[in-house]
Amino acid sequence: MTVFTSAYFTMTEQEAIEYAKTRLNYFAPDAELDCREIGDGNLNYVFKLTDHKHNKSLIIKQAGPVARISDEFKLSPDRNRIEYEILDLQNKLAPGFVPKVFSYDPIMNCTAMEDLSDYTIMRTALMRHEKFPLFADHISTFLVNTLLLTSDVVMGHKEKKELVQKFTNPELCEISEDLVFTEPFYDCPRNEVFEGTREFAKREIWEDPKLQLETAKLKFEFMTHAQSLLHGDLHTGSIFVKEDSTKIIDPEFAFCGPAGYDVGNVIANLIFAYVNAKYTMADGEERQVQLEYLENTIEDIIDLFKKKFLRAWEEKATEQTARYDGFKEYYLDAVLRDTAAVTGLELCRRIIGLASVKDVTSIEEYSSRAAAEKICLAAGKMFIMDRESFKTGEDFVRILKDCEKRF
Amino acid sequence: MTVFTSAYFTMTEQEAIEYAKTRLNYFAPDAELDCREIGDGNLNYVFKLTDHKHNKSLIIKQAGPVARISDEFKLSPDRNRIEYEILDLQNKLAPGFVPKVFSYDPIMNCTAMEDLSDYTIMRTALMRHEKFPLFADHISTFLVNTLLLTSDVVMGHKEKKELVQKFTNPELCEISEDLVFTEPFYDCPRNEVFEGTREFAKREIWEDPKLQLETAKLKFEFMTHAQSLLHGDLHTGSIFVKEDSTKIIDPEFAFCGPAGYDVGNVIANLIFAYVNAKYTMADGEERQVQLEYLENTIEDIIDLFKKKFLRAWEEKATEQTARYDGFKEYYLDAVLRDTAAVTGLELCRRIIGLASVKDVTSIEEYSSRAAAEKICLAAGKMFIMDRESFKTGEDFVRILKDCEKRF
Repeated sequence: MTVFTSAYFTMTEQEAIEYAKTRLNYFAPDAELDCREIGDGNLNYVFKLTDHKHNKSLIIKQAGPVARISDEFKLSPDRNRIEYEILDLQNKLAPGFVPKVFSYDPIMNCTAMEDLSDYTIMRTALMRHEKFPLFADHISTFLVNTLLLTSDVVMGHKEKKELVQKFTNPELCEISEDLVFTEPFYDCPRNEVFEGTREFAKREIWEDPKLQLETAKLKFEFMTHAQSLLHGDLHTGSIFVKEDSTKIIDPEFAFCGPAGYDVGNVIANLIFAYVNAKYTMADGEERQVQLEYLENTIEDIIDLFKKKFLRAWEEKATEQTARYDGFKEYYLDAVLRDTAAVTGLELCRRIIGLASVKDVTSIEEYSSRAAAEKICLAAGKMFIMDRESFKTGEDFVRILKDCEKRF
Repeated sequence: MTVFTSAYFTMTEQEAIEYAKTRLNYFAPDAELDCREIGDGNLNYVFKLTDHKHNKSLIIKQAGPVARISDEFKLSPDRNRIEYEILDLQNKLAPGFVPKVFSYDPIMNCTAMEDLSDYTIMRTALMRHEKFPLFADHISTFLVNTLLLTSDVVMGHKEKKELVQKFTNPELCEISEDLVFTEPFYDCPRNEVFEGTREFAKREIWEDPKLQLETAKLKFEFMTHAQSLLHGDLHTGSIFVKEDSTKIIDPEFAFCGPAGYDVGNVIANLIFAYVNAKYTMADGEERQVQLEYLENTIEDIIDLFKKKFLRAWEEKATEQTARYDGFKEYYLDAVLRDTAAVTGLELCRRIIGLASVKDVTSIEEYSSRAAAEKICLAAGKMFIMDRESFKTGEDFVRILKDCEKRF
């Protein structure tokens, strides 16, 4: 029998069943367990265990010893502790928006959590051109609750400093520092650029020193501005959806950084869904409806975020100077500026950098994919360069519509 | 015999002698030790031990259980660990500019360090209207070495994050957050305002919502911008000088914050020395020479800081994006902006807030003290409000000269 208490090893499906039976008090003794490794991320093994007899299921997520994205990234499996603790905290800050966590095992580096099999990964669902009318409302609540309530506006400053210390995340931050802020903006050998886009990337991105300068500023803000506890990787592959519910998963990149980072990641990934719909759906009313749904979702997320942010500020700000005239508007403006910048960074890095998104890579027709990618890069650049000018949801959609006309 | 290994207690002079004899391997066995408690700060007991037989001396600095500034501040004596570790680090970054440290005792919360009795506290020396022609050169080297070399420009980003974690300093940061950024800017009961200044403070500071808004922005930057490892309390009472040498002491407020914070504190405290000379020296050439010395020192510190900063950047920057065209100028501009802002904050808080400076309080003549304080407040406000416009040493001196003419 496998021993789980002495040293870490990566489990097989069979060992995950044994682990659940001997180490977790979740399934009945007479459970008939079946297990499948369903991880499609880059960093972890995800075991789904099902007890067919009692119709009960569970996820065991185990950190791999090396990031699966590439052998070049060596990651400490301690990131699973971070994930467990942050899910626990997010459950308190934004109840119902993250999976329930049952246990964390520091030796095996794994977390047992709620199975969300009746949900779909949002990226997959959007690529099937499904719509989630409640998503803007859900995600804006999640964003306001996790971002504002972990800032110095609301949190006691000593407690906030403990939060910064606890969620210091050097290895996963380094991945973002390299893959989001650095490599996409020069001709880095590790980039993976689609042939139909290379010339455009070279001219518009790599050969623009003004753009590079702005990315350096943003990189330093990302590294040094401990504003709020972030999810840190809030793309549509980190979001589970069903008609009436949204669950945010995979917070292993969590750390205290600029609040706009999470908001910008959501917006950029909806833009990927937009170009996917535009270039993979047949021209017609259904496509038009899907594109409008995505535009409205982007617009609503920003406008609902603003509204809920200001309302939560009024209700919950504890910092005395946060009540000074004009301060909350100044603060929110800065979050929107960072949101625009990160929307732009994410748009560029998913097109040029190492970690692409299926929304775009699945566009089969060569010139369509090139057009989709150029829209993302052109919009990305404008989001970065003009980031001070984004104040409303409409401002965010306008750039997308403008760039769409160019290709 | 007193036992020093079981639990913390605050030592008497006699117990400090016993401590040195039994716990430190510094004095000879036949030493004839004499001890005086010479602390004039607010937070610690400072024992000076002298062996008259062998002409050797040592400082033992012990953290008190409660800040001596006021019983309202409860401080963990762990700040002495922070002080030991930072002196050790600063010795490596800026050799010769901090006292040597010999030992740290985590039970007694005390540090044994080099005795600097042949030095004078700079505030005292400047109040005697002495001059230190090498000071601008020394302090600018100290500032560049400690601030730039602990930033993400030079330091590896993972190592930097460890530094942020290690020097998290919630209790002493809270003192600064309250006493520097908050209380001076409204009619806080804890403020100690000179009668001749109260009306001016009320009108120009407390009743100016635009100024308050800026202080809120600066407070949030102080709390969240982990740019460089700061000294954190770099006023002229934390600097020992003699003709050919400068030693920076008391780094117990150290944490990672905005680099301009340390530079601004130095500049503001030279302005206090300036108004002291102006209003306590007899009108005549000697006064003129002293005022010019202080003006030149302020100007030189800024200009030498800029020059050495850019040179060290060229030599030592490791971050790839830090080499992008225009980035170091952008970064240095931001440090100068923060320097101006903190100069202004320090000028206001020492006049209005709880912790005053002797340079000003020792001005005996009522209307002179009021004039000196109004110069500081008027300049302070301009440094905060116009902080974007300070680019050279001359810019810093000009404000002082302009405000001087008004009172």
